Amino acid sequence: MNGSQGISRRRLLAGGLGALAGGAALGVGATRLGGDDTPSASAGPPSTFTGPHQPGIVTPAQDRLHFAAFDVTTRSRAELADLLRRWTDAGERMMRGESAGAIGPTSGPYDAPPDDTGEAIGLPPAGLSITIGFGPSLLDGRFGLARRRPAALVRLPHFPADNLDPARSDGDLCVQACADDPQVAVHAIRNLARIGFGTVSVRWSQLGFGRTSSTSTAQQTPRNLFGFKDGTANVKAEETDALKQHIWVGPGDDPDGAWLTGGSYLVARRINMNIETWDRQSLRDQETIIGRTKAEGAPLSGGGEFTEPDFALPGRDGPLIDIASHVRMAHPTTNDGHRILRRGYNFVDGSTNLGRLDAGLFFLAYMRDPVTQYLPLQTKLAKQDLLSEYLQHTGSALFAVPPGIRDGGFVGESLFA
Amino acid sequence: MNGSQGISRRRLLAGGLGALAGGAALGVGATRLGGDDTPSASAGPPSTFTGPHQPGIVTPAQDRLHFAAFDVTTRSRAELADLLRRWTDAGERMMRGESAGAIGPTSGPYDAPPDDTGEAIGLPPAGLSITIGFGPSLLDGRFGLARRRPAALVRLPHFPADNLDPARSDGDLCVQACADDPQVAVHAIRNLARIGFGTVSVRWSQLGFGRTSSTSTAQQTPRNLFGFKDGTANVKAEETDALKQHIWVGPGDDPDGAWLTGGSYLVARRINMNIETWDRQSLRDQETIIGRTKAEGAPLSGGGEFTEPDFALPGRDGPLIDIASHVRMAHPTTNDGHRILRRGYNFVDGSTNLGRLDAGLFFLAYMRDPVTQYLPLQTKLAKQDLLSEYLQHTGSALFAVPPGIRDGGFVGESLFA
Repeated sequence: MNGSQGISRRRLLAGGLGALAGGAALGVGATRLGGDDTPSASAGPPSTFTGPHQPGIVTPAQDRLHFAAFDVTTRSRAELADLLRRWTDAGERMMRGESAGAIGPTSGPYDAPPDDTGEAIGLPPAGLSITIGFGPSLLDGRFGLARRRPAALVRLPHFPADNLDPARSDGDLCVQACADDPQVAVHAIRNLARIGFGTVSVRWSQLGFGRTSSTSTAQQTPRNLFGFKDGTANVKAEETDALKQHIWVGPGDDPDGAWLTGGSYLVARRINMNIETWDRQSLRDQETIIGRTKAEGAPLSGGGEFTEPDFALPGRDGPLIDIASHVRMAHPTTNDGHRILRRGYNFVDGSTNLGRLDAGLFFLAYMRDPVTQYLPLQTKLAKQDLLSEYLQHTGSALFAVPPGIRDGGFVGESLFA
Repeated sequence: MNGSQGISRRRLLAGGLGALAGGAALGVGATRLGGDDTPSASAGPPSTFTGPHQPGIVTPAQDRLHFAAFDVTTRSRAELADLLRRWTDAGERMMRGESAGAIGPTSGPYDAPPDDTGEAIGLPPAGLSITIGFGPSLLDGRFGLARRRPAALVRLPHFPADNLDPARSDGDLCVQACADDPQVAVHAIRNLARIGFGTVSVRWSQLGFGRTSSTSTAQQTPRNLFGFKDGTANVKAEETDALKQHIWVGPGDDPDGAWLTGGSYLVARRINMNIETWDRQSLRDQETIIGRTKAEGAPLSGGGEFTEPDFALPGRDGPLIDIASHVRMAHPTTNDGHRILRRGYNFVDGSTNLGRLDAGLFFLAYMRDPVTQYLPLQTKLAKQDLLSEYLQHTGSALFAVPPGIRDGGFVGESLFA
């Protein structure tokens, strides 16, 4: 990285305005101008692809999401690699709060389309993180990558009760953009799609308006649309050993997937929640189904939010925590000790033709091995979790998320080497 | 109003936790507990229906929107009036940052559904405003209100190039919920829909992630998804005379619509923007179409953002500001001096099956008389505005927005009196 991390779009604009007169922009690049940073809405330095891991995984979960899956429309391996290089460059710029391209949204050449679409002018970096992943279909042979497909990078199977929409599932590539300002996340996806014009096309995309997980012990646990805290037992950024054990792909994990070492797998599931039905259940039933209190998120076996649930503690009719409750079904102790890093978002996409809100959880979870960590878990949840009655999975995808980059590299370079 | 305006959900929860033990909630109401306020994300006192006008019109535009249109499913006038009374009560509570119902989301009776869905527990009021409107169909005779329909409360006509989806248009009732936290806006709509179960059903709903207008001189002008500042010439809260002239319905405006005095009309239009096409236009063409610079939003005739455009100022080939530019076409001077109060939001609803973002502007505008202020304006824009080539109107609705209430009244009471 270079020394320009602190330059925000606001400063770029202020610096660029002198170049404008009478509606004509002179060819002054809206690039690194130096000087102090405009205070950011989000704490901490900007995210970067440089380092052992991509940003947006253990980065403290931002409030807003725009996620897009892409189909590759070229047959050229070189064009694909070039796109990843251009995405890396534009992504780094946007994560620093700069425009997507070097010549910015409002400066010359005046007779060409701008290198940035402009709707983030004046906005701070807002903690933007960009995370790029590869679907199993990318390694299907079109680009000579089939022999490098790790065994765990498979199309997710049809789970019991899945009601998947193909138009909301799968994809050759994905980009997860998270920020504390939705306009910044939308701007990032839109500009990467613009840069990819002719090489990729958007297959589906999803906005999320509120995070439902904490990925740092410094964050409060937020609430999902059932009104409950979610992801209390999430793997957190501070748990270095647990991350190594459960989240990051290790060097010996797969002989064909050595390029993924330091990366992770991302499961994306669009889960509609039947909130009108849920809202008519009693508080007792809601808490029984979840296995935690609604107010504090404490397990029904007692204590506070972060007290470990006691699944054996007896009540009047069996254990205080129902054996089919969500907290027990999803807990590591009933899943061979497996843990995943959840990073999902609440969504509302208008309403259905039955007059119900088209709303739910866009489930995003990172893990070291989806075959052992997700497939058995979701199979069990779909069959036995009391909560499943109120859920409908409508989208599904799996992506391999390459590691971070060395200085001057691009995301996924190890796959193309 | 009473003295409990300063009580936030966070305090209610903190106060209510003592009542919870071992997963069982005792019947302590999560109501007014007194004490200091948790600092709000938004400045100013909470919004209220009490006063000459409803909130959410001249209220400084909040960052996020959830808007819903409802069909009334009952035939009972009494049930309809009762719903408006319950909405008023719940709306007042939520705007103060309290739960939607008196017994809250986490306290007894334990064997009944909670009076609030819970996802806003712990969140501050976030500047929530709720605004309720009546569509022309509400006054169609089902409820004995037909004789009180003002002449201006008509179904909007089909404008040139409209491509309207009936499932995103019209409605008997509407609720506009604006807040600086989207979870607070979603919570408000969802709880009003829950309260209306059996009386109304959601016809359509729309999330907006970023405001595109300022309604106060203290606010910066934000940017739309074309990257331009929008609504610079908006009617602002501080312009008392202009509000009276252009926004609030006057006592003599309509003999059948005296109940609407102090209210307004709300035009809602879902306008898809062809952003991929726009992004391939040169900066010169983009600025010519809009008639303003992209960087600052200054008219192409010179000056700064708030300089009045000079439509006569000559350039090399005709006026510097194109006669068909958006700024000229929409300007009061070319529309018989009419002004409206715009309060729209950017939206992205995923992507289309053509791989384009389903994105645009959810246009919301308040005005005193849609027949003279909006119908001619939109007819002209659809035919002549250079910008129209990049827009597609996909949803359309008109609502009469009753005035604010007296203490103890309910929204729309004057219509039922």
